[in-house]
Amino acid sequence: MGSDTRRNVTIAMIARLAGVSVPTVSRVINGRSDVAPRTRERVEDLLTLHGYRRRSPVKETPAALIDLVFNDLDSPWAVEIIRGVEEVALSSGVGTVVSAIHWRISSAKQWLDNMRARSTDGIIFVTSMVNPPLQAELSRLRLPVVIIDPAGVDPQAAPTIGATNWAGSLSANQYLLGLGHRRIGYIAGPPHLMCSRARLDGYRAALGAAGIAVDDTLIRPGNFYHQAGYTAGTQLLSLSDPPTAIFAASDQMALGVYEAVRKRGLRVPDDISVVGFDDLPEVQWCSPPLTTVRQPLAKMGMLAARTVLRLAAGETIESPRVELATDLIERDSAAAPRRR
Amino acid sequence: MGSDTRRNVTIAMIARLAGVSVPTVSRVINGRSDVAPRTRERVEDLLTLHGYRRRSPVKETPAALIDLVFNDLDSPWAVEIIRGVEEVALSSGVGTVVSAIHWRISSAKQWLDNMRARSTDGIIFVTSMVNPPLQAELSRLRLPVVIIDPAGVDPQAAPTIGATNWAGSLSANQYLLGLGHRRIGYIAGPPHLMCSRARLDGYRAALGAAGIAVDDTLIRPGNFYHQAGYTAGTQLLSLSDPPTAIFAASDQMALGVYEAVRKRGLRVPDDISVVGFDDLPEVQWCSPPLTTVRQPLAKMGMLAARTVLRLAAGETIESPRVELATDLIERDSAAAPRRR
Repeated sequence: MGSDTRRNVTIAMIARLAGVSVPTVSRVINGRSDVAPRTRERVEDLLTLHGYRRRSPVKETPAALIDLVFNDLDSPWAVEIIRGVEEVALSSGVGTVVSAIHWRISSAKQWLDNMRARSTDGIIFVTSMVNPPLQAELSRLRLPVVIIDPAGVDPQAAPTIGATNWAGSLSANQYLLGLGHRRIGYIAGPPHLMCSRARLDGYRAALGAAGIAVDDTLIRPGNFYHQAGYTAGTQLLSLSDPPTAIFAASDQMALGVYEAVRKRGLRVPDDISVVGFDDLPEVQWCSPPLTTVRQPLAKMGMLAARTVLRLAAGETIESPRVELATDLIERDSAAAPRRR
Repeated sequence: MGSDTRRNVTIAMIARLAGVSVPTVSRVINGRSDVAPRTRERVEDLLTLHGYRRRSPVKETPAALIDLVFNDLDSPWAVEIIRGVEEVALSSGVGTVVSAIHWRISSAKQWLDNMRARSTDGIIFVTSMVNPPLQAELSRLRLPVVIIDPAGVDPQAAPTIGATNWAGSLSANQYLLGLGHRRIGYIAGPPHLMCSRARLDGYRAALGAAGIAVDDTLIRPGNFYHQAGYTAGTQLLSLSDPPTAIFAASDQMALGVYEAVRKRGLRVPDDISVVGFDDLPEVQWCSPPLTTVRQPLAKMGMLAARTVLRLAAGETIESPRVELATDLIERDSAAAPRRR
């Protein structure tokens, strides 16, 4: 009991308990699709219940594929993650199957069916939460799973790769303080995501370390999207004592601030400095090019691919959560504040 | 001879000619990786020479995968194509393997090796030219191939999906003419791509139909990238009789014009109108949001996936090249010209 071996649970025993043949149990264990769904569930439940373990997590024939699963492929940073995963996978002789499950059970099921039909060596999810039914199904399949979670820092059921949100926000706000800004507006991300809290705390920490009291009228809610940045930017610019700089917790919100500044007939950075968070590929082409905190999305993809391939090879990994460092990318959207 | 049947060429005959066993020939035909490269080449050459055809192009066991191959994944529009391909594939029970081969033979070889290790039902290339050694290798493998070619309109070796470049450019320039512009600057794409020629011809056709002589000083060379748009925009704004509107043959060049306008202390669209071509996801967030010609990239991906799956099922397709219609997306970067 409790040992790390197979505890004498054999395929034959599971077959007997399930009332099916030994080859059927083998097919379930190998993730094949030619088993009736109810039979598979019964066998998988028995395998879990009796603590059946494969002799090794390494499959006899690797699928030479890993799965990269997004909720949606409409995010401008999806391609950065794909690029990182694909580069590591292909150089290891492994193909990258890219899927989008749209937060829908039906799409998740299509993906699971396809995966069973062709097999996979491991799965990378890009999400802040794998939905529970999907998670249950995956734990039945006993496949290596790694999560890329640029947004949250909640504990996850699988090894997770994120970015240093707190430190990234700290560095951006220290940079603005270094330029001479004392009134810095902050546009927040959605409060239910831990990354939003980490970025806000980085802002508070930078001000606190500089001996500046936080003025709550300068902190505005947001949701990472353009419209929220536009709205919050318009509000901040309308204050009787407006900020001289705005730090937006996402690039899309920073671009919304650009639009608010333009609509008031003002200019970035002459009238107000703006700094973002993400470094989406396109913000280098904005007018003016955006100073921002770079999330190392391609590197996060590379590390996720390396991790899932190590798990597929039966290795163990060191830490359940790794955060990769952000970089402040200085471009033209921040300058010293104008004297008043 | 010349009939559409197997012409009595059997696997046994090929095996005898190649001096290998029948199972080895089968392995080559099924694209498996466990055949020595020189043996595979000899067998494949004999299969081609003797006109061997599979009883049906439908494989006994579909791989439940298609391959989507880019040169590079750094283009901001890659994710649009992936999204379209993935949506159609997954709803057909097929996974999408995304690869980037970086114009390098070594990466193409990695991809071919991986593909042989796991098999595929068909391949979609996103490129203006599949390199000849790769093309030769693919024709040996006898797999369905479809090309998505947003850039060129050259004849290709496989069915090709593009966009209506000429008509898209025509509509954008007619729109500017409709606003009252008579001096419209044009920033071109690279001249070796047929799409650049088609877009330039669309510009000329719009002016010609409106009875306006083309002024060659208003036509500037470009390469689709931001810097070229900035340079050409700066030149056009410096003319003694500058244009009142600029049509850039790509969105990235249009954003370069934005930057040239900003650096001269001018404003879009108050001082000059700007229209782009592509509708990259981010241009809706520019300041001001860009009016542009939308390339239907996701739809091109969807059609490519449907086409390759039809070919994989042994169907024939109607036309070797299909162009999908572009749309003019009106936003805030174009207005009536200022009176002088």
